[in-house]
Amino acid sequence: MVPTAAILIIGNEILSGRTQDVNIQYLAKRLGELGIRLDQARVIPDEVPSIVATVRELAAHHTYVFTTGGIGFTHDDRTAAALAEAFDVPLEEHPEALRLLQTYYGDALNAARRRMALVPVGAVLVDNPISKAPGFQIQNVFVLAGVPDVMQAMFESLRGRLSGGAPIQFTTVSCGLPEGILADDLAFLQGRYPEVEIGSYPSFRLGVLGVSLVMRGIDAAAIASATEAVVAMVKRLGGEPAVE
Amino acid sequence: MVPTAAILIIGNEILSGRTQDVNIQYLAKRLGELGIRLDQARVIPDEVPSIVATVRELAAHHTYVFTTGGIGFTHDDRTAAALAEAFDVPLEEHPEALRLLQTYYGDALNAARRRMALVPVGAVLVDNPISKAPGFQIQNVFVLAGVPDVMQAMFESLRGRLSGGAPIQFTTVSCGLPEGILADDLAFLQGRYPEVEIGSYPSFRLGVLGVSLVMRGIDAAAIASATEAVVAMVKRLGGEPAVE
Repeated sequence: MVPTAAILIIGNEILSGRTQDVNIQYLAKRLGELGIRLDQARVIPDEVPSIVATVRELAAHHTYVFTTGGIGFTHDDRTAAALAEAFDVPLEEHPEALRLLQTYYGDALNAARRRMALVPVGAVLVDNPISKAPGFQIQNVFVLAGVPDVMQAMFESLRGRLSGGAPIQFTTVSCGLPEGILADDLAFLQGRYPEVEIGSYPSFRLGVLGVSLVMRGIDAAAIASATEAVVAMVKRLGGEPAVE
Repeated sequence: MVPTAAILIIGNEILSGRTQDVNIQYLAKRLGELGIRLDQARVIPDEVPSIVATVRELAAHHTYVFTTGGIGFTHDDRTAAALAEAFDVPLEEHPEALRLLQTYYGDALNAARRRMALVPVGAVLVDNPISKAPGFQIQNVFVLAGVPDVMQAMFESLRGRLSGGAPIQFTTVSCGLPEGILADDLAFLQGRYPEVEIGSYPSFRLGVLGVSLVMRGIDAAAIASATEAVVAMVKRLGGEPAVE
């Protein structure tokens, strides 16, 4: 079985359009490299009932769930409380998290900042090499910060806990032919290489209409054969294929 | 009742990490301006069963659903077929869509390109001012292209069909104080202004740690009062507030 994942972006700032999400793309790339298939991503508000329901649903259907956002200590940070509720456990002050915060803040560790040490009972911390306030893992759910630099550092510190599969690889064949010329032959090739997912994406590089054909999967030999067949098809139809 | 929306990004290219989604942010901003509350966004693969199930769920729970992606005519474009299945109707060749394609392509309108005229029975076309292949609306679901320029042009051409509410407005107060100094007073202010959603976002502008406090809602007078109170709080705590 290929391990699977879902991403849950907890963020009013994304749903308001104020902030451009970049966490989905980072996690998507890294999960592919680790051989974990990303099945879906969701963006939901910082509201406890919505986080509880979504975490329960995703945790039940995917090998791993990664949440980002809402793990600070201001009134709008509700992720830790929601995760505790999702797994029917109370929040507790984690001694190691408290020690990290004491070392980082010293005398400036007030009651508000100390709330960052609250995690659901049974959670395992996730290291935060940047701003020290840890994320955590509870069962198959990894709870990460929303700030992209911090999220990325946390993901890299936890990746040893993930059991991946064969890395998902891809090649891209670009050409200046329009999709309308390629569509039927491409559908035929997709039928011939069922283990390779062939995607067709119109592009407007340098103002010129063209198409990027993406061959994706875990079987390197099949991808190589499919890529060769796509290159031959493009040439036969009068295009100049560029392989990346 | 405030009208609500969900966004459904249909895109293997987003889930593979190959492409950075920018459609969520565009739609989020525009929906807010139109007074439509964006409740959630999802990214799912170009697979019929997953599209069918997700469209049914979202259409039942939100005033409007906007899908992007998968409306071309290559083998990996499955949105139109999935929408037909989601609403239990067959696909049919829409005469107006066919006429648009005939005008645009002339003699180059082959069988593959002609598939772009297939829409679910009962669907109303959505204009595509850029590349002519139309999107469509079926019940409360708007089916748009995935390419950002085309998606945006389609959205602007359909927005007259949407019933919005009061525009969602926001102000931002930025300052160089850390969240740990502000958290408790901010929670108090959130309690005093329940009609305003107050968000606290740590920032690292110009390499300096600070925070952006965002006041958001549809009641302009309440937002103005809350903003004034937040500015006074920041000054009292020794910060220099900048209001946007």
